Amino acid sequence: MGGSENGATDNQNKPTETSLSPDSIINLDQGDPTLFEPYWKKMGDKCTLVIGGCDLMSYFSDSSNICWFLQPQLGDAIKGLHRVVGNAVTDGRHIVVGTGSTQLSMAALYALSSPSASHPVSLVAAAPYYSGYKDQAEFLRSGLYKWEGDAHTFDKDGPYIEVVTSPNNPDGTIREAVVNLGEGKLVYDLAYYWPQYTPITHPLDHDIMLFTFSKCTGHAGSRIGWALVKDKEVARKMTEYMQISSIGVSKESQLRAAKILGVLSEGCQHFRTADSENFFEYSHRIMRERWESLQNVVKNSKIFSLPKFPQDYCNFTGKYTDSNPAFAWLHSKEDIDWESLLREHKIIGRSGERFGADPKYVRISMFSPPEAFNLFLERLSAIIDNTNGNVVGGEESSIIK
Amino acid sequence: MGGSENGATDNQNKPTETSLSPDSIINLDQGDPTLFEPYWKKMGDKCTLVIGGCDLMSYFSDSSNICWFLQPQLGDAIKGLHRVVGNAVTDGRHIVVGTGSTQLSMAALYALSSPSASHPVSLVAAAPYYSGYKDQAEFLRSGLYKWEGDAHTFDKDGPYIEVVTSPNNPDGTIREAVVNLGEGKLVYDLAYYWPQYTPITHPLDHDIMLFTFSKCTGHAGSRIGWALVKDKEVARKMTEYMQISSIGVSKESQLRAAKILGVLSEGCQHFRTADSENFFEYSHRIMRERWESLQNVVKNSKIFSLPKFPQDYCNFTGKYTDSNPAFAWLHSKEDIDWESLLREHKIIGRSGERFGADPKYVRISMFSPPEAFNLFLERLSAIIDNTNGNVVGGEESSIIK
Repeated sequence: MGGSENGATDNQNKPTETSLSPDSIINLDQGDPTLFEPYWKKMGDKCTLVIGGCDLMSYFSDSSNICWFLQPQLGDAIKGLHRVVGNAVTDGRHIVVGTGSTQLSMAALYALSSPSASHPVSLVAAAPYYSGYKDQAEFLRSGLYKWEGDAHTFDKDGPYIEVVTSPNNPDGTIREAVVNLGEGKLVYDLAYYWPQYTPITHPLDHDIMLFTFSKCTGHAGSRIGWALVKDKEVARKMTEYMQISSIGVSKESQLRAAKILGVLSEGCQHFRTADSENFFEYSHRIMRERWESLQNVVKNSKIFSLPKFPQDYCNFTGKYTDSNPAFAWLHSKEDIDWESLLREHKIIGRSGERFGADPKYVRISMFSPPEAFNLFLERLSAIIDNTNGNVVGGEESSIIK
Repeated sequence: MGGSENGATDNQNKPTETSLSPDSIINLDQGDPTLFEPYWKKMGDKCTLVIGGCDLMSYFSDSSNICWFLQPQLGDAIKGLHRVVGNAVTDGRHIVVGTGSTQLSMAALYALSSPSASHPVSLVAAAPYYSGYKDQAEFLRSGLYKWEGDAHTFDKDGPYIEVVTSPNNPDGTIREAVVNLGEGKLVYDLAYYWPQYTPITHPLDHDIMLFTFSKCTGHAGSRIGWALVKDKEVARKMTEYMQISSIGVSKESQLRAAKILGVLSEGCQHFRTADSENFFEYSHRIMRERWESLQNVVKNSKIFSLPKFPQDYCNFTGKYTDSNPAFAWLHSKEDIDWESLLREHKIIGRSGERFGADPKYVRISMFSPPEAFNLFLERLSAIIDNTNGNVVGGEESSIIK
């Protein structure tokens, strides 16, 4: 969650072609984290998983656990990784595994709503919010919950659920709840609270915290997410959601995630003295390089800007580090429809409107393959040269309206 | 789907212990198909899957396909298997993969309902129907569809969806649609239309047909199901459901299913001249043995009975074969609450009431581990001796009420 969902048009469903030409459409709509592949390739057989034909046949993984389809190895690997990274408290928490954190966010809505209530519980998130929340809340026209949009303007009485995404998708900011009324329940979507994206300032300790393998290591195809849940009854109801909607979660993916998260944790344990880069050092470096390239291009613009993030002390790396969000949230001070402008240049981004914000904003994935990212920077440079010229000359082109 | 969902109580979520004593609770509530494990063990490395650490990282599998997260190998393996078995037409069909056929049946409801309709579409299934359909239709209180129960008594005007499960869960019968009104749409749940359960009389050719890896080969832990869909727009909407609810389906499980279904097809191609048993011969033999043992026990009862199935010509095996459903649908002609009676004997079955039928029926899984199945037969024999005694003596015990 907080991550990549796919749009409605054909183009939005197509990743960027692997071999690029000046005519190629570059899809920066989704956050498909394939840019971390080279690291895992370098790890060779360490992360290879072998599954025999007769393995993992039962629906059950551990019938003594509330989440009876959670493979114990995965539960252990998740706890181990949070301990090493220091980003979340796991002691005494129930772990619920999901088909991505997407399925878990739907499970959380189910668990936090009440079938006996006369009205659906309100669901809010502070704008700009991840566009998927609205889709998830609305697509089945559930009577249990109702999407009410921006948390900043929410003032209804009664129970509500606020999703807090931190670092936020689309804009990378660190967030806290904004509604803070009596009957509120909070779901923290922490998909990006990992060292490559943001300084890890302290272990978070909220009632429901969602994480996803996709954004942690880049293994989006495995569809593994997990929730750390304080309350037993909430964990039970989230498990029930998973039971009714898919009778559990792929065991192959769980085993693979357990293996890879285990290797990741091990690589991090003595990283200051280790010979080779651990995954978070590698991915932080890659993300930093991308952000520096993008910042170097955008700083030439008279009208476009990127969010600024203060450095902060990262407990994991033991130094002050930058934020390198998975998405760039480009803003224009002129009245530009970003999505259309980019489309003219064969770049697909996602309009600010989809996130409850202005079309003067656009979300751009920082996860594209290197060749696509470089071509994007070239095209963005050209757009900036063009708009600068228009601004300097006082004449507005068709793209400024 | 059409398979195993899990009940509400703690006991119902626990599989039978592996080491059994006279006090052990035998859980025959779920259809957990681990009894086919020995076959896959015997296949050794043929079905072993090796996945490298950098494999399968993208959300995408094939962006030219409507179901963009379907691994092409799995699509090919599914078509190959249906061709060999002859149970379903695949030419010109769209394949949509799901996290089990459970997720696909929810996707079908979404695809066949209309967000602009003033009323939810009615959902029906002929009783006795799989208990999961009701849970799936009701748990989110969707405004798109409404569970209306038994198709036999359905007489509302307007659009409806009928789920046809064939062979049926719980009672193993071969079924056709029963409502047959103008505005109806049909979803065929064909989880058990495989040679080990029923004679394959002809390739089915319906608009939406659901299958699951769980019941075909016994790999329930993989959570792989597939839909064969005639209409492109329906396939697109089912894919959209998967996209919003879980952004696709585990690629590890898809690859493993592709491999195992491939090995299965290969083993079936020349099976009349082959040295070794193919999977369907093996699983048919196991199921047949179980059914014969159970029939031998139940025939001694004066009040209990099992459904009778006519032999039919199976195109796959080229001979007349018996039906060996995954569940036994035990009936009592006396007024017995089966579920309670079995509970007294530490056996967990699922009451007929859960399937829209009478508590004089109970569903018993035929999939339990061998030791548990034998202990079940022993206990059932004792129950039968006891009830026979009561009937002969004219005195009714507490269990007949």
